[in-house]
Amino acid sequence: MSAIIKIAIDAMSGDRGPEVVADAAVFIAKQYPNLHLFLVGHQGLLQDLLINRLDHKQLNEQIHIVHADEVVSMDDPPLLALRNKRNSSMRVAINMVKNGDVDACVSAGNTGALMATARFVLKMIPGIDRPAICCALPSAQGHTYMMDLGANVDCSSEHLYQFALMGSVLVNAIDNIDKPRVGLLNIGEEEIKGNDVVKQASQLLSAGKMNYIGYVEGNDIFGEKVDVIVTDGFVGNVSLKTIEGVAKLIADFLAQEFKRNWFTKLIALLALPALNRFKRRVDPRRYNGASLLGLQGIVVKSHGSADKVAFSNAIKIAMLEVQHNIIGVIDRSINANGETLN
Amino acid sequence: MSAIIKIAIDAMSGDRGPEVVADAAVFIAKQYPNLHLFLVGHQGLLQDLLINRLDHKQLNEQIHIVHADEVVSMDDPPLLALRNKRNSSMRVAINMVKNGDVDACVSAGNTGALMATARFVLKMIPGIDRPAICCALPSAQGHTYMMDLGANVDCSSEHLYQFALMGSVLVNAIDNIDKPRVGLLNIGEEEIKGNDVVKQASQLLSAGKMNYIGYVEGNDIFGEKVDVIVTDGFVGNVSLKTIEGVAKLIADFLAQEFKRNWFTKLIALLALPALNRFKRRVDPRRYNGASLLGLQGIVVKSHGSADKVAFSNAIKIAMLEVQHNIIGVIDRSINANGETLN
Repeated sequence: MSAIIKIAIDAMSGDRGPEVVADAAVFIAKQYPNLHLFLVGHQGLLQDLLINRLDHKQLNEQIHIVHADEVVSMDDPPLLALRNKRNSSMRVAINMVKNGDVDACVSAGNTGALMATARFVLKMIPGIDRPAICCALPSAQGHTYMMDLGANVDCSSEHLYQFALMGSVLVNAIDNIDKPRVGLLNIGEEEIKGNDVVKQASQLLSAGKMNYIGYVEGNDIFGEKVDVIVTDGFVGNVSLKTIEGVAKLIADFLAQEFKRNWFTKLIALLALPALNRFKRRVDPRRYNGASLLGLQGIVVKSHGSADKVAFSNAIKIAMLEVQHNIIGVIDRSINANGETLN
Repeated sequence: MSAIIKIAIDAMSGDRGPEVVADAAVFIAKQYPNLHLFLVGHQGLLQDLLINRLDHKQLNEQIHIVHADEVVSMDDPPLLALRNKRNSSMRVAINMVKNGDVDACVSAGNTGALMATARFVLKMIPGIDRPAICCALPSAQGHTYMMDLGANVDCSSEHLYQFALMGSVLVNAIDNIDKPRVGLLNIGEEEIKGNDVVKQASQLLSAGKMNYIGYVEGNDIFGEKVDVIVTDGFVGNVSLKTIEGVAKLIADFLAQEFKRNWFTKLIALLALPALNRFKRRVDPRRYNGASLLGLQGIVVKSHGSADKVAFSNAIKIAMLEVQHNIIGVIDRSINANGETLN
């Protein structure tokens, strides 16, 4: 039997409330008997939610409640949440990682508050200056990791270099790729293109030991030429939201065409298996769960509006990072083999 | 009969050569008898291409050749193209705008060289510091204009303000929208989000006379809340390429699912009318043609790999801008009614 993995779940902070979290916890606990989940939030409320869901004894051993009487709201300013809500479900979940009670935590809460709190409680891995948000995105043959997706609006070339290093180590460990191909997001592939920060980061990466393939462009996210794409949090976040927007628009257009009249509706019915397979391939829920890299602890951010399937995926990502000891491998790669910038 | 519109076409600089340009010229000239086109490039070559295409007398009066014996290549550095290729098809086409021989020009050439040459020859509209690339993108109910799409990697808040002003004037004139809604691209809608340049630009826009609606996010490009989205050329270009990438990935996935076996192929055949209507709605060729705004002359950039339909669309955009006297209205809005920053 696999080693037990313990994950704390901030059950209160998502847009869709603790019901979705309870559903996701039960859903994934049934799949992984070695997974122990600690739902952090209002004890009474969570007990009521779980009472009907824990339908066999095994689940009672796997799913636990940890009380926290405050909730960080989606519009709480990060520093206010950090200072004033010391007993929030988010803070308690992160504290559990810090204290070694669990191996990782997952939250669908306010990104800024999660980042600020995690950084304050867990601290950075020595040699990494800033945390970065990293996520896998679908590509032609698999997926591409992209970072930073919004933790840092302004980045120096050294920050981008550190992001590249963390991304490279992550992909090496999780996807078992020997020398992940690292690309810098830019507005052209020629050396003369781009702003000063990107050009300096390119020089750092060229001089380093990673498998740096040079500049890549927005469309390369979905191609096959690169495994890790590095950019600052402003560009990364805009790209991510843009992707969500295009995908939704295209899906809406497709649905509209098939709903146009009784004939197209009939065709859609016949085409359902193909359309469903297509839907599954582009389903954003399969890509839910972004890693906050660079911290001395595993923290995974779920989309605020995640449903059961999406939230479960974020938990799976936390599990994978625990199994591959991501914090240890990032720390080693920076502080042992000389890849560090310091 | 409508007034005659004269447009110079750089026939030599696209990836697909002058054949596509000749095809597009004939295709669109047939639709608009008031359109006179001046194909700029190698006289002999263009004559050979046109001889079989000009199949009636009217076309002979509408399509003309202007000789230019140099070509700017896709990898010519902008300043080198500007200094050393003074008789390039690109330069001659822009000179014709400057000299008043034509009302506008269209090129599928090297964006950097086109921008540098157009700026050098035509000069900026007084009050505008930098040109911006602007393009319409498909949205749920129509389209959204976005700028800058790659002319300026670093922008100040004043530049962003000027872009907003030009975009607002353009949309007002072309789409006949009274007070176009202007949004600043950011990584969240809250006032505290974003970098300093964006925050300062937001203050400028809030204090100005435009219909500024505040921050918008990447997904809003495809929604219905905003008419003009302003960002710097780095973010804009990455977004544009990202959109191309997602759209291609989704189209490929859809095609793969319908090609899976004989049954799905049969369904695809039945679904062809719906699938074709869908394809037309997301067809990037319908959105080909980006305006280089801020210059004292109309210059439209076509995608380098544009085909006949796509290139014709770029010519149509140039026509529209001539019909609506875009240069005049931008100039007036800045230098007459006090919207200027100076």
